[in-house]
Amino acid sequence: MGGDFAPQSTVQGAVDAVRELENSLQVLLVGDEKALRTELSQYDYPADRISIISTSKVVTMTDRPTRVLKEKRDSSLIRAVELHSEREAAAVVSAGHTGAQVAASLVMLGRIEGVRRPTIGSYFPSENGVALLVDVGANTDCKPIHMLQFAAMGSIFVEHFFERRPARVGLLNIGEEQTRGNQLAVSTYYLFERSGLNFVGNIEGRDIFKGAADVIVCDGFVGNILLKFAETIYELLLARFQGALNIGLPNEELHQALRGFQKDFDYAEHGGVPLLGVNGVSIICHGRSSARAIKNAIREAVIMVERKIPEAIREGIEQYHAGLFSRGIARLHSYQEWRERHSRESD
Amino acid sequence: MGGDFAPQSTVQGAVDAVRELENSLQVLLVGDEKALRTELSQYDYPADRISIISTSKVVTMTDRPTRVLKEKRDSSLIRAVELHSEREAAAVVSAGHTGAQVAASLVMLGRIEGVRRPTIGSYFPSENGVALLVDVGANTDCKPIHMLQFAAMGSIFVEHFFERRPARVGLLNIGEEQTRGNQLAVSTYYLFERSGLNFVGNIEGRDIFKGAADVIVCDGFVGNILLKFAETIYELLLARFQGALNIGLPNEELHQALRGFQKDFDYAEHGGVPLLGVNGVSIICHGRSSARAIKNAIREAVIMVERKIPEAIREGIEQYHAGLFSRGIARLHSYQEWRERHSRESD
Repeated sequence: MGGDFAPQSTVQGAVDAVRELENSLQVLLVGDEKALRTELSQYDYPADRISIISTSKVVTMTDRPTRVLKEKRDSSLIRAVELHSEREAAAVVSAGHTGAQVAASLVMLGRIEGVRRPTIGSYFPSENGVALLVDVGANTDCKPIHMLQFAAMGSIFVEHFFERRPARVGLLNIGEEQTRGNQLAVSTYYLFERSGLNFVGNIEGRDIFKGAADVIVCDGFVGNILLKFAETIYELLLARFQGALNIGLPNEELHQALRGFQKDFDYAEHGGVPLLGVNGVSIICHGRSSARAIKNAIREAVIMVERKIPEAIREGIEQYHAGLFSRGIARLHSYQEWRERHSRESD
Repeated sequence: MGGDFAPQSTVQGAVDAVRELENSLQVLLVGDEKALRTELSQYDYPADRISIISTSKVVTMTDRPTRVLKEKRDSSLIRAVELHSEREAAAVVSAGHTGAQVAASLVMLGRIEGVRRPTIGSYFPSENGVALLVDVGANTDCKPIHMLQFAAMGSIFVEHFFERRPARVGLLNIGEEQTRGNQLAVSTYYLFERSGLNFVGNIEGRDIFKGAADVIVCDGFVGNILLKFAETIYELLLARFQGALNIGLPNEELHQALRGFQKDFDYAEHGGVPLLGVNGVSIICHGRSSARAIKNAIREAVIMVERKIPEAIREGIEQYHAGLFSRGIARLHSYQEWRERHSRESD
């Protein structure tokens, strides 16, 4: 029931998924039974592979995440997460209220042991495909150890999901040198260098598109602003080209160019992004997700389950921590700590 | 001598300025006399309105700003700032090393009394023209009082330069509500509300283009990343459209659309941006500035001098400070202070 075009786009996305993806895939549609049956009746699909779980409520965009958990247990979103937590479903996919999905996933699936703050990354176009910018999930006022965990979870995800090994990790910053940036960036750089990550150094705003890193790490304040800004680029482009588009696109090359730009920047066309650091697979889709985006998100969920990515994160986080311990820097909580350490080492 | 296309673009920009701008304008070109004479000889212009100040050195992009001040006093950049500080010139315009220009301006022109950190803003396209994003000048790890001063200086600049009164001030943040965002954003919101600024609330990344604010305030870490990211959008667009462009643009509408996008995002086409908070007019141009950008930057300098914008900032900053004093919040240096104050007021 979640998202601007639900249940049309979610149901169509589910139908396309069971038609096009592997034969063992089963989809549980959670929500208003009547509405879902009506939608489903329009499609021809293997009926034994889609079932409906009926719920009475819907989470709206104005609901407070914490209240939803208490007062809307029988909503499509919360019930879907619950089905996953009960292992009735192997993963959950939603285009609904992101805050509520995150809150429900944290509470019902639980955090992976050792993970301080689960994180959401987002894909940015880059010269060799995409880069994962992490955190874009509003984890503000971060410490270096949080940034390290974002980097570790992002790396493990990219290595398993895109099979790019080892994932190259960059730190979003305002200059190339290790002493540039704000206090968080400077102390995070120090930690990344000693972390066992495949750290390629600072990535400036101008380098995001250039493909120098597979995972670009920033705190959730910066990441969220950058993501929401990037999401409007395509709208601005469309507005500018409206006149030209109205009279029809005169040739195929131009059509391809605009389509390429859409592929880069129209986040509603993408699949979803995973919530990393929880015990399970919770895929967060854009509110404006099309059926195509929903189908892609379901495909992502399948890959994450098959490749056991949450388990890989559990093991990986432990290894990164052990690596830091062995270097005597289990903690690095502040700029002050970095300064003390840095001045000791420089003596 | 500064910038990727100097001295060609700087000399041509100066020639165009004295040709096209008002009759009283005189330009002093500072740099290698021979190179400047050779460039100038190609143009037809009122010879009594351009003079050359000969210097022996040039600041390169790898120079350290602080060393430049000591070791390259006879460089074009430092001498130009010095001419302004000696009141031989009413303003200084450069497309050279930004860090060195800022350092020289701070030291030789000095800060306006009461200004903690001078700031650089940059223009972002918006539905009603442009919005000034401030700070983009790498003032990292800011306190609320710094943000207030960025807002005040940005407002005064916009009000005098664009004659938009009162300037609408927004705070770049990750949500609409006043309690959203990181600790800096939350405590800055509190201060803005009580500041006498024409504060319109939080501006999210998705709203930057929408024209809801004339001045959008953020710390220099966020601002610099956002600016450098935005600067690459036009490059990405051009790369995408290269195929279509190579075979020629088939119609005028499309040409206009691309040109509009260029106008929005090609920062090398803009004039410069002022360093706000120093005793003088120091205009910072993009390294890739065209002759047109240089001419526009000279025009900006003329307007700033004629409208006495540095003096307006001096008076305005005092007024904002007095306003805060009268509300009993002369200082707000940290999130902790905000919390204490906020909980007292909520009692």
